[in-house]
Amino acid sequence: MASRLLHRHIREQLKDLKEVTHESLVVGAIENAFQLMDEQMARERRGHQVEGGCCALVVVYLLGKVYVANAGDSRAIIVRNGEIIPMSREFTPETERQRLQLLGFLKPELLGSEFTHLEFPRRVLPKELGQRMLYRDQNMTGWAYKKIELEDLRFPLVCGEGKKARVMATIGVTRGLGDHNLKVCSSTLPIKPFLSCFPEVRVYDLTQYEHCPDDVLVLGTDGLWDVTTDREVAATVDRVLSAYEPNDHSRYTALAQALVLGARGSPRDRGWRLPNNKLGSGDDISVFVIPLGGPGSYS
Amino acid sequence: MASRLLHRHIREQLKDLKEVTHESLVVGAIENAFQLMDEQMARERRGHQVEGGCCALVVVYLLGKVYVANAGDSRAIIVRNGEIIPMSREFTPETERQRLQLLGFLKPELLGSEFTHLEFPRRVLPKELGQRMLYRDQNMTGWAYKKIELEDLRFPLVCGEGKKARVMATIGVTRGLGDHNLKVCSSTLPIKPFLSCFPEVRVYDLTQYEHCPDDVLVLGTDGLWDVTTDREVAATVDRVLSAYEPNDHSRYTALAQALVLGARGSPRDRGWRLPNNKLGSGDDISVFVIPLGGPGSYS
Repeated sequence: MASRLLHRHIREQLKDLKEVTHESLVVGAIENAFQLMDEQMARERRGHQVEGGCCALVVVYLLGKVYVANAGDSRAIIVRNGEIIPMSREFTPETERQRLQLLGFLKPELLGSEFTHLEFPRRVLPKELGQRMLYRDQNMTGWAYKKIELEDLRFPLVCGEGKKARVMATIGVTRGLGDHNLKVCSSTLPIKPFLSCFPEVRVYDLTQYEHCPDDVLVLGTDGLWDVTTDREVAATVDRVLSAYEPNDHSRYTALAQALVLGARGSPRDRGWRLPNNKLGSGDDISVFVIPLGGPGSYS
Repeated sequence: MASRLLHRHIREQLKDLKEVTHESLVVGAIENAFQLMDEQMARERRGHQVEGGCCALVVVYLLGKVYVANAGDSRAIIVRNGEIIPMSREFTPETERQRLQLLGFLKPELLGSEFTHLEFPRRVLPKELGQRMLYRDQNMTGWAYKKIELEDLRFPLVCGEGKKARVMATIGVTRGLGDHNLKVCSSTLPIKPFLSCFPEVRVYDLTQYEHCPDDVLVLGTDGLWDVTTDREVAATVDRVLSAYEPNDHSRYTALAQALVLGARGSPRDRGWRLPNNKLGSGDDISVFVIPLGGPGSYS
């Protein structure tokens, strides 16, 4: 009788407990770590005269699972048997438009009298006051018409496209660490409230697949991805790794080097050029290659 | 010369113009219409003594494309050649947790002194003050630890799971129209600021596939989906439609009736029961079936 009652009591207690998986604890710990890191940078930036900020891409391996945490515009992909598995997405003014607009809408004081949270297909001209123009607000994915008012003449919170997209005409990456002192150009408006230090964490279960020595996780900064597609990276993985013995560990270093050199290009008469004659990457190019097959004796 | 200059000017003008597709104009018009409808309900609710609110699921067919706009907990799926294509997702305190928490965090006055925007795996007890407990805030998808403070003893903004999840212990659907006067039980705190009237719009291109008379779009209210899975609906589509001639238009009405009757169940000694002896749906059950093959003479 007591045994049955005890069971019922335990069931009753567990009923109100939301499911907290082992995985969600690791994800939460990583999310918390990013926030603590950002707070530490805020505290120490004066004593150490450290300004500026950075994006962050972190890999944690725990109990058979790979956790990839990304805050910024770096990227991680898995190349497995030639197949590409995205392990992150970039956080830019374009991909985070609605989050940024919502913040500007709810906290208009963050925009000063200089910016509008609304988006227009192009800059609104003073002579267009009172006319109808397409716009998009924080709730919308499509475009609709509105009558242009005085506030719509302000500079848009999010403007530009692709690599040139900017928040408050200043920064092109919307997640990362640091940048606590960053201000809008010729203004006292702080940018930091619009930047998030929280990563998106994706989980890859290593035990669900038997990995071979050519299966790798590739991490790269924007310098790599600005001029290299996922497909091209996968082709380089195949080309470089197949030129080395499976047991030769230098093959992964050689692959990382090949990816960096491919993005940098070669010096020609008019600057560093890629084989297709486009300009090589002028940005920082850092690449990590992590073999997923693990150490072992491959034949 | 003028011709070349004109070309350059046009190119210059178009350069700064973001791409506005035909599709995004239709989506924007639908989004705007939902907002205007909600504003109209706000204006007219006193004159007409109309209180309450509702979710909304709308289908627009335009130039070969089907636009499905959903705000609430109804659901639309396409059943095509036995395959299920989701055309909406439900908006509930669980699926919109981060949006709701962000709003509570940025506008704490909306929570009064009664609610906390933080989420805990279970209700925090006063005796746990100062102890460590798992929590989740608006930025997190995982769980991490924090020390319990006085404010954490407040009722959580989002609580409960599944069908029992509630915002401010009151409402289980987080998007829809109306409900402008809805207040927290025994309180003057308004719920409406947490409800969004904006739909998510999904687009389905009818021209990309040659549809047969058994391919249908099924729209249903929560009364249907509470007790019926997508798979079961697809099975009913197959069973009912195959019993009718392809040219018999009553087959779609018969299908909608079968879906409603299946969710309602049959009267037994202890209430309305489904074939598996579970309780039938006690909620409103409305079903629309839209054939995608269009009118025509099928053999």
